[in-house]
Amino acid sequence: MSEMFNVLTPDEAFQVLKQHLSPLREREVVPSAEALGRITAEEVRSPEDLPAFPRSTMDGYSVRSQDTYGATEAVPAYLEVVGEVATGEASTVELGRGQAAKAYTGGMLAGSADAVVMVERTQQVDETTIEVVRAVAPGENVVNVGEDVRRGDAVLPPGHLIRPQDIGGLMALGLTDIAVTRRPRVAIVSTGDELVPPAGNPGPAQIRDVNTYTVSSLVSQAGGIPMPVGLVADEYEAQREAAIRGLDTADVLVFSAGSSLSSRDLTAAVIDALGAPGVLVHGISIKPGKPTIVGVVDGKPAFGLPGNPVSAMVVFGLLVRPTIALLSGLTGVVERPTVVATLTRDIPSLAGREDHVEVHLVHEDGRIDAEPVFGKSNLIFTLMRADGTVKVPLDKGGLYAGEQVEVSLY
Amino acid sequence: MSEMFNVLTPDEAFQVLKQHLSPLREREVVPSAEALGRITAEEVRSPEDLPAFPRSTMDGYSVRSQDTYGATEAVPAYLEVVGEVATGEASTVELGRGQAAKAYTGGMLAGSADAVVMVERTQQVDETTIEVVRAVAPGENVVNVGEDVRRGDAVLPPGHLIRPQDIGGLMALGLTDIAVTRRPRVAIVSTGDELVPPAGNPGPAQIRDVNTYTVSSLVSQAGGIPMPVGLVADEYEAQREAAIRGLDTADVLVFSAGSSLSSRDLTAAVIDALGAPGVLVHGISIKPGKPTIVGVVDGKPAFGLPGNPVSAMVVFGLLVRPTIALLSGLTGVVERPTVVATLTRDIPSLAGREDHVEVHLVHEDGRIDAEPVFGKSNLIFTLMRADGTVKVPLDKGGLYAGEQVEVSLY
Repeated sequence: MSEMFNVLTPDEAFQVLKQHLSPLREREVVPSAEALGRITAEEVRSPEDLPAFPRSTMDGYSVRSQDTYGATEAVPAYLEVVGEVATGEASTVELGRGQAAKAYTGGMLAGSADAVVMVERTQQVDETTIEVVRAVAPGENVVNVGEDVRRGDAVLPPGHLIRPQDIGGLMALGLTDIAVTRRPRVAIVSTGDELVPPAGNPGPAQIRDVNTYTVSSLVSQAGGIPMPVGLVADEYEAQREAAIRGLDTADVLVFSAGSSLSSRDLTAAVIDALGAPGVLVHGISIKPGKPTIVGVVDGKPAFGLPGNPVSAMVVFGLLVRPTIALLSGLTGVVERPTVVATLTRDIPSLAGREDHVEVHLVHEDGRIDAEPVFGKSNLIFTLMRADGTVKVPLDKGGLYAGEQVEVSLY
Repeated sequence: MSEMFNVLTPDEAFQVLKQHLSPLREREVVPSAEALGRITAEEVRSPEDLPAFPRSTMDGYSVRSQDTYGATEAVPAYLEVVGEVATGEASTVELGRGQAAKAYTGGMLAGSADAVVMVERTQQVDETTIEVVRAVAPGENVVNVGEDVRRGDAVLPPGHLIRPQDIGGLMALGLTDIAVTRRPRVAIVSTGDELVPPAGNPGPAQIRDVNTYTVSSLVSQAGGIPMPVGLVADEYEAQREAAIRGLDTADVLVFSAGSSLSSRDLTAAVIDALGAPGVLVHGISIKPGKPTIVGVVDGKPAFGLPGNPVSAMVVFGLLVRPTIALLSGLTGVVERPTVVATLTRDIPSLAGREDHVEVHLVHEDGRIDAEPVFGKSNLIFTLMRADGTVKVPLDKGGLYAGEQVEVSLY
């Protein structure tokens, strides 16, 4: 046990943990069409120029731009229309001086053409002649070969979260499969003598297990694979056995710890016994969420989340979510989305402690108000009434009604 | 055809469409554990009080609060410890005047107790006596019966997007199944003579289909079920047949239209021919995305998205995404998350047109810069380089470098 007895901030705790972690090495090749939300395992380079042929971006006429120089409404240029290039078909037309060919949006330019005149800037004079009333520059209304992306260009960096447009870009290049990182598997052990499965009828002093399901959903949202191990009593051997079973296949271990002091000590003892270095951080300077345990067991991160749902959710967002991101190789920012809102009531706090307060958002006349949802932190319905959280930083004694605050959204 | 020849703003176009739409009526009952991201089909009321028994929120002693009145460090109250209540077990202890029972976080209070004294506020005097050094009020360190939620209370409204904490709350109440709305099915038809499937090798003037995959991913993100119908040539009969096939099972029809004028007219003609009222809006005052078609076919919304990927994505966000939300019964705000950033370059625009400009975000020293990604709007890699978009409102002639702008994130 290399436990730190100084209470760390959530950020400091994550920094301590981070030193022990590195991204998972395994990768998977998946169809690009199913890669939404996955993380690229390596840099993706373009195998070809895109577009592969000069494309018109307008309906009109392929021209040699020099033939239109000086053209105006008063003194138009006259061009001979010598053919057309249908969309999807290779050009069989070659332009000579003073010649043009009908062009369509998305279609290939005629041979020797370097620009397209929009149809709106032309007048039909007779069957084979048009007037051009405005000059075009070389490349105007054209996407040139390689203008979107060049062969060999990096199109996606490693560690990139794949979005709809990225899937589109891969498809554009014919990259119908992509190497992505493996989703981290997260074993979830809910402990507590008072817990029963939700489907059952609790006895007179029992309550239904909530955190297995809340934490599983949070893991899915974070890009991990939840692996619930089950409900375990506050008993050393049972917890150790469940943790070993979980770690057998998982990359991360999350205890939703019992709430009593002894239960938390039990979780810490189990994490210490599982492997080195064991518990790294016991307790963080945050409300709610102080009794949090952070450890590493033979290279795998292990967390003891407080048993009450609000604390568990806050600590998950600050520690477990960035851990899943790190293991999946995600680079860049993983902050929750935020909105700026006007606080409706004072939030008292203590300097030296980071407070996370649930707020309910009220949209009115284009303004957003953030109403603190005060409630004991073991009440799940505090969370259900909330749309997000407001952070009171470590060095502040509170926030005041009327202040503009940044709300991290659920 | 009840086409409007005045060009509408995107908002106006959605308002016109909205009058023809109503939420899908069908509902599905799914396990609550799998309901993340689904929409509640009806109000959920609590079948019971939560908690069902008075719970301690601390480790310490169940007491009758009146027995501690006036207790201080100097003049402590002395209480007789007559038993304990183990976590998860019903109390078999009944407190008389001056008595206390050991209590654990999450455990039931002893009979006749109305508060808990934290263990830190007590001193063990002898085997059966403790000193209490601070008074507790009735209800202190206790969650009373029904304090989290009361039987019959509304816990989730209809049309609510289910989040991790909502799943937890349902489980806490034993609601292991939940009625949710049906996910809207969206048929996607990609049209264009130049398009080939991504796996194939394009001919000299062909390009690979991008929008089927981009739009499918956007539909999934919006909570719908994408149903790609396939690639169709710019040909009236082929498009009509594909649309009918799509609408046979889908709730929404999306054409990723060819880019040429004739192709767009074709899409409009097909939508008009499919059913009443047909095309409602042809062209919106937006850049990129002007050549957008919005219609309704026998009660089902039908869209002609511009063929180029950037326009298609912008218009999807403004029109198709809120349509999917409306059909799924979602109430409340469906805005994309935003961040405030500093614009690094001027963005010119025209008053009377809503511009959506792709930006790349640079995080530096806690500040966020938004760099416009200028590029022809038919370039998929413009989108891949972007982290979000900045809107230049209808009534503005542009935005200036150094301005604080709201970036809608991808």
